[in-house]
Amino acid sequence: MKKLARMTMLYDFYGRLLTKRQQEIMEMFYEDDLSLSEIGEEYSISRQAVYDLLKRTEKNLEGYEEKLSLMDKFEKQQGKIVDIGALVTELRKTGNLDLLEQIEFIIQEINDLERK
Amino acid sequence: MKKLARMTMLYDFYGRLLTKRQQEIMEMFYEDDLSLSEIGEEYSISRQAVYDLLKRTEKNLEGYEEKLSLMDKFEKQQGKIVDIGALVTELRKTGNLDLLEQIEFIIQEINDLERK
Repeated sequence: MKKLARMTMLYDFYGRLLTKRQQEIMEMFYEDDLSLSEIGEEYSISRQAVYDLLKRTEKNLEGYEEKLSLMDKFEKQQGKIVDIGALVTELRKTGNLDLLEQIEFIIQEINDLERK
Repeated sequence: MKKLARMTMLYDFYGRLLTKRQQEIMEMFYEDDLSLSEIGEEYSISRQAVYDLLKRTEKNLEGYEEKLSLMDKFEKQQGKIVDIGALVTELRKTGNLDLLEQIEFIIQEINDLERK
């Protein structure tokens, strides 16, 4: 995953565990596309200070994922649901009921994921 | 959900954000079924101190869920996957391909959940 996409997702999952200031800086940088200097002006701190804050915040987010792996679990689940969708589409087209067994297998895999 | 089930699930989701001591006490109480007094003896602290620690820990876990709602999201997703499983079983039994539309609808609902 590209860094921007990963940070956006991690922020989506764990952002509410960050401090208000960390949340603001993440949003300015990743959502509003402000530069480090622009964010620095906002808070009257140096570009370098913003950089350090951002790095620390990203490390916090990665730390949450390292501990909880909830994003990874969601991603895997999401992938399997896409697989079910594709099989359903194929079943619709072909009427091949043998595909139901594959769908059941994937549902079982999802249930196994939940239990980990 | 019953309190025991809820605490076990919350601990499963967010336990790794707790301190080592909090984790130990949660496991002794909820997994090993030790009494407050028994846990107190383990740490040479009073029954009341264990109670307070446990309450605080439960509050921390509820706090994580209040902020992140990830357990709630997982639960909803899980419910929908059970629904898909039931429809697949029915489809298998009846061969009624109209059920595919319902399955696709639920897949869409799951995708909408992910985006929230």
